[in-house]
Amino acid sequence: MAKVSIIMGSDSDLEVMSKAAKILEEFEIEYEIKIISAHRQPDVLLEYMANLEERGFAVVIAGAGKAAALPGMCAALTPLPVIGIPMKTSDLGGVDSLYSIVQMPSGVPVATVAIGGALNAGILAAKIIGVSDKSVMDKVKKYAADLKDEVNAKGEKLKQLGYKAYLEQK
Amino acid sequence: MAKVSIIMGSDSDLEVMSKAAKILEEFEIEYEIKIISAHRQPDVLLEYMANLEERGFAVVIAGAGKAAALPGMCAALTPLPVIGIPMKTSDLGGVDSLYSIVQMPSGVPVATVAIGGALNAGILAAKIIGVSDKSVMDKVKKYAADLKDEVNAKGEKLKQLGYKAYLEQK
Amino acid sequence: MAKVSIIMGSDSDLEVMSKAAKILEEFEIEYEIKIISAHRQPDVLLEYMANLEERGFAVVIAGAGKAAALPGMCAALTPLPVIGIPMKTSDLGGVDSLYSIVQMPSGVPVATVAIGGALNAGILAAKIIGVSDKSVMDKVKKYAADLKDEVNAKGEKLKQLGYKAYLEQK
Amino acid sequence: MAKVSIIMGSDSDLEVMSKAAKILEEFEIEYEIKIISAHRQPDVLLEYMANLEERGFAVVIAGAGKAAALPGMCAALTPLPVIGIPMKTSDLGGVDSLYSIVQMPSGVPVATVAIGGALNAGILAAKIIGVSDKSVMDKVKKYAADLKDEVNAKGEKLKQLGYKAYLEQK
Amino acid sequence: MAKVSIIMGSDSDLEVMSKAAKILEEFEIEYEIKIISAHRQPDVLLEYMANLEERGFAVVIAGAGKAAALPGMCAALTPLPVIGIPMKTSDLGGVDSLYSIVQMPSGVPVATVAIGGALNAGILAAKIIGVSDKSVMDKVKKYAADLKDEVNAKGEKLKQLGYKAYLEQK
Amino acid sequence: MAKVSIIMGSDSDLEVMSKAAKILEEFEIEYEIKIISAHRQPDVLLEYMANLEERGFAVVIAGAGKAAALPGMCAALTPLPVIGIPMKTSDLGGVDSLYSIVQMPSGVPVATVAIGGALNAGILAAKIIGVSDKSVMDKVKKYAADLKDEVNAKGEKLKQLGYKAYLEQK
Amino acid sequence: MAKVSIIMGSDSDLEVMSKAAKILEEFEIEYEIKIISAHRQPDVLLEYMANLEERGFAVVIAGAGKAAALPGMCAALTPLPVIGIPMKTSDLGGVDSLYSIVQMPSGVPVATVAIGGALNAGILAAKIIGVSDKSVMDKVKKYAADLKDEVNAKGEKLKQLGYKAYLEQK
Amino acid sequence: MAKVSIIMGSDSDLEVMSKAAKILEEFEIEYEIKIISAHRQPDVLLEYMANLEERGFAVVIAGAGKAAALPGMCAALTPLPVIGIPMKTSDLGGVDSLYSIVQMPSGVPVATVAIGGALNAGILAAKIIGVSDKSVMDKVKKYAADLKDEVNAKGEKLKQLGYKAYLEQK
Repeated sequence: MAKVSIIMGSDSDLEVMSKAAKILEEFEIEYEIKIISAHRQPDVLLEYMANLEERGFAVVIAGAGKAAALPGMCAALTPLPVIGIPMKTSDLGGVDSLYSIVQMPSGVPVATVAIGGALNAGILAAKIIGVSDKSVMDKVKKYAADLKDEVNAKGEKLKQLGYKAYLEQK
Repeated sequence: MAKVSIIMGSDSDLEVMSKAAKILEEFEIEYEIKIISAHRQPDVLLEYMANLEERGFAVVIAGAGKAAALPGMCAALTPLPVIGIPMKTSDLGGVDSLYSIVQMPSGVPVATVAIGGALNAGILAAKIIGVSDKSVMDKVKKYAADLKDEVNAKGEKLKQLGYKAYLEQK
Repeated sequence: MAKVSIIMGSDSDLEVMSKAAKILEEFEIEYEIKIISAHRQPDVLLEYMANLEERGFAVVIAGAGKAAALPGMCAALTPLPVIGIPMKTSDLGGVDSLYSIVQMPSGVPVATVAIGGALNAGILAAKIIGVSDKSVMDKVKKYAADLKDEVNAKGEKLKQLGYKAYLEQK
Repeated sequence: MAKVSIIMGSDSDLEVMSKAAKILEEFEIEYEIKIISAHRQPDVLLEYMANLEERGFAVVIAGAGKAAALPGMCAALTPLPVIGIPMKTSDLGGVDSLYSIVQMPSGVPVATVAIGGALNAGILAAKIIGVSDKSVMDKVKKYAADLKDEVNAKGEKLKQLGYKAYLEQK
Repeated sequence: MAKVSIIMGSDSDLEVMSKAAKILEEFEIEYEIKIISAHRQPDVLLEYMANLEERGFAVVIAGAGKAAALPGMCAALTPLPVIGIPMKTSDLGGVDSLYSIVQMPSGVPVATVAIGGALNAGILAAKIIGVSDKSVMDKVKKYAADLKDEVNAKGEKLKQLGYKAYLEQK
Repeated sequence: MAKVSIIMGSDSDLEVMSKAAKILEEFEIEYEIKIISAHRQPDVLLEYMANLEERGFAVVIAGAGKAAALPGMCAALTPLPVIGIPMKTSDLGGVDSLYSIVQMPSGVPVATVAIGGALNAGILAAKIIGVSDKSVMDKVKKYAADLKDEVNAKGEKLKQLGYKAYLEQK
Repeated sequence: MAKVSIIMGSDSDLEVMSKAAKILEEFEIEYEIKIISAHRQPDVLLEYMANLEERGFAVVIAGAGKAAALPGMCAALTPLPVIGIPMKTSDLGGVDSLYSIVQMPSGVPVATVAIGGALNAGILAAKIIGVSDKSVMDKVKKYAADLKDEVNAKGEKLKQLGYKAYLEQK
Repeated sequence: MAKVSIIMGSDSDLEVMSKAAKILEEFEIEYEIKIISAHRQPDVLLEYMANLEERGFAVVIAGAGKAAALPGMCAALTPLPVIGIPMKTSDLGGVDSLYSIVQMPSGVPVATVAIGGALNAGILAAKIIGVSDKSVMDKVKKYAADLKDEVNAKGEKLKQLGYKAYLEQK
């Protein structure tokens, strides 16, 4: 079965990136999670990316902040689809990470999700695998249905309680 | 074989979006190209998205500008992976389109590419299909190799001519 | 009497959105408050919007954050005037929400208020209803007069206390 | 019948603002179009706004650029709903106008549309009048339906011609 | 002697604005401090500004946040030089206030200082008065000299302590 | 009589800066116009600023673009009020110039006008001189009155012609 | 041996700037650390910069915030390479400091590092000295190797613990 | 003698980058100019950077646009000081390039110059080499002196001609 590689440049990103791992676990998709810095370990990155495809990986999820070169360099080093997660930054809010990841040149796309959007990166990876794996696609659909039920339930609760009681209970 | 749906909200986006179509042709991937506006034809969009999956589509490419709801609404209406292209805008340069597409809420990812990045959207779609289709993945690899050769050739030319002659020949 | 529909995409927006509800209560305008996510429940939204007008609603107030599609999709689904409230976001401050709501394409306006401006959305709804309902317009005028009195009173207090004592009393 | 007042701060805004006038003509809504600068003629503005309501106006459309005080001052001077149009600016693209208009303080809302969105301002005014005027609301609905037909027609044309021929014909 | 009028739109700005008052006291310049909202009390503002000049005022200092119309409207209502202070805002950091104050149209300048720069507004007012009042200009020069001495002293302290001890003592 | 010093860092700013000179001529205020670059001629700037006050200057107008240090350095080198004009830039629109000029530290204010606002800088200088020179203040008032008449005339013309004929005549 | 001058405009920057000092100590590079404000002590700055070169300094590191003129003025006053550090600011996050430092005019470069990037400024200074000092270059290489080892160790730890245990141990 | 490597990711950057080459020629510094794309030829970049130091290079100048990874990857692959030039971009003006280059993580600095600042990159490279090469430093000083003379001459011309004649002659 297709596997997902989750890479981040620093362990300070691990808490956010773990959301991608958790949702893949929920989807029963195998994954590998790594700390590899494009700027501090370029050769490690090169070596790691070189045989991802033959090791049976289907998708790469890469998260990085500030001058976030990691997702783009992953996309430069593997033909696999790469999903990029811009990390929130303390000074510019993450707009630096976002531009550094999404504004890729012609020929080398990175599938960018929202600032801090590791959960969505995991779901997107599942959708990509789901293109050829019906069981994964079914789980993706179930996840969306559950999400919808959850919002429906909140809507129902708001209807019954009114907004004042709802806010007090939160 | 897996097909790609290319959607845009207005025919003013067609010139940019046609780059996605052209590259898919080059990759010999079947596609359908449509003008459907999320804001002007929400019911048409709903209907169109509803049976994309069963019609054999694997990926959706959606381009839109300004308050660019189309890619996100596509992602809300199909379990297929959706690639979003933020259109350049005349007043804000496309940062409005970018934020409207990339900053999706949890559960509903859009794989966002660069402002005006329709060519990359096509390549990303091919990579996604290539996860399970070796012949497509081979074409993606060949495309990357050709791109590399092209830059190599330019580098060689610069070496031979020097920058002054190179600039005069451009 | 004309009613107002208050919609938000998530219950995390409820505290802000409740300010719209409160001011409508103060103006004795009937309202309905709902959690409906454009991205997670597009069909629920479609169904809800479809008969708002015949159910006697006059105005829609929709609040959403990040890639805030809800207000625009409401405007796509009803001929009623739609007021959009961009939610503050933790990374980009709400400029993403603002652009996603205000930059609507030709033909489908959203009446956008300030980031987090739910109170003003409620007042704007009252002004719209007040165009044809003199009693509501009178309440709007009284509200403005009271607001003015309040600022006048603060000005008077500052005059009497001086700024040092005023700041200590705050 | 309810009338609309269209105000702009400078005749350099007239070409953009005329789109609001044209669509109101199309909707057969009476309007008055004025050049009044908040910063250069504050007393003229005060006097003009003072009796708009009793002269039978229902909505104000105000467009201004840069430190765009006009829409907000209109909202300060009349209880009528005020629609604000941020003008595109040559240096900052209109983000200055947008912030100056949309970020109104509590109690004094301005219904802001997109940068340069005068057409949408006209439609929004019609929707507001349509809350209590069925014939206007019918025209608004017809306009939306026509717009939809227009996009449908373009979609149909694209289907028949293919994108290459479509682009050549543009 | 020339007096300064300090105006703010809301008492939430008083703490920041009081820095202007304090420095004027230090410079022994007479001032009047007022809360007048351009958007909530336009007529009060008009009346107040109308006779500032004949009451012996020389400079106006106006602070406001968000769609900060107050400084610009002051400049529209008096021939006196108006100094504008953009207030920091919780969502956009004050860039909205800054654009709303500094980007004034031709003919109606506002002398804008930094976001939250009330102290500097007071100094600027003193410099303006100092153009024709030698005793005030002397105080301005003394203030600058003291400021310089203060930084010199810090530099000396850093030299003696080294940065480690300096940081511990802070 | 009080004189104004107009300084710019480069002759590429001369066309914009000449608007300040022209309006000062109109106000019959004596001025000196200089090209001095803070970054290329710091010693020339130091020397020039050192005796401006004793040479009878009352106000400095300084325009600069990008990392626009000139206005701030002028303010550091003279006790006279300094007016700063941020130049429009080809890449960032002038927001770089604006931040570099307006965000001055405590103690050293620069009276910043709009991006490219040299005309307003000239008017502001006149207002500052007008604080103690009645004849200049009278000219400032006349200028404002003429500006108002001009807008009034345009308003009248629009009333007579209607917007269609008005636009054709432009 | 070549020395580094570390300058900041205010002691509020000392905590950040001390990171440059610490890394230079680690590299055994001699340095001098100073508080000199370009805006408050222009003459002190001029005097200090004038003989830096003959005193044996090789590089200047200058940190400043907001309208951050210090690095640029250093570059104007010495032929030595100047490294600029934009300080984070409480309102604009440091984008004001960044633009004020990086957008230098032709002829007067400042080597700008990231917002708050004092550590990197120190490393850059060492690299510059390392161009002609093999022992310093060796330390720079060792530092990079250690950094790489550190990330490698974290990667190893993540592999052994898994992300859940890793996050708990942090 | 120390050499400079000038690298760019695409020949579309050559015209801007040639300014760095020209100034190095003027300073009689040897250089090599290359087109190597970090995203399209990562292995070529790796190989090229690997032996730059032993081939006698002292400084790297790297220019790139959008998600501009090249300068940062150069800094990751060589201990030599790397100067980064953010290219202007057609949609975001170059702020994307700037953030992608300047916001480097701890340990891997890039000496960033202004958007499009290739000339300054060349000068900065010369200053770095000049730290240990007196003849180069002398040329840098002469360049600054010439620049100063040039501005002085313009200042003199403005004094003689007045601004009107000066503008006509331009």
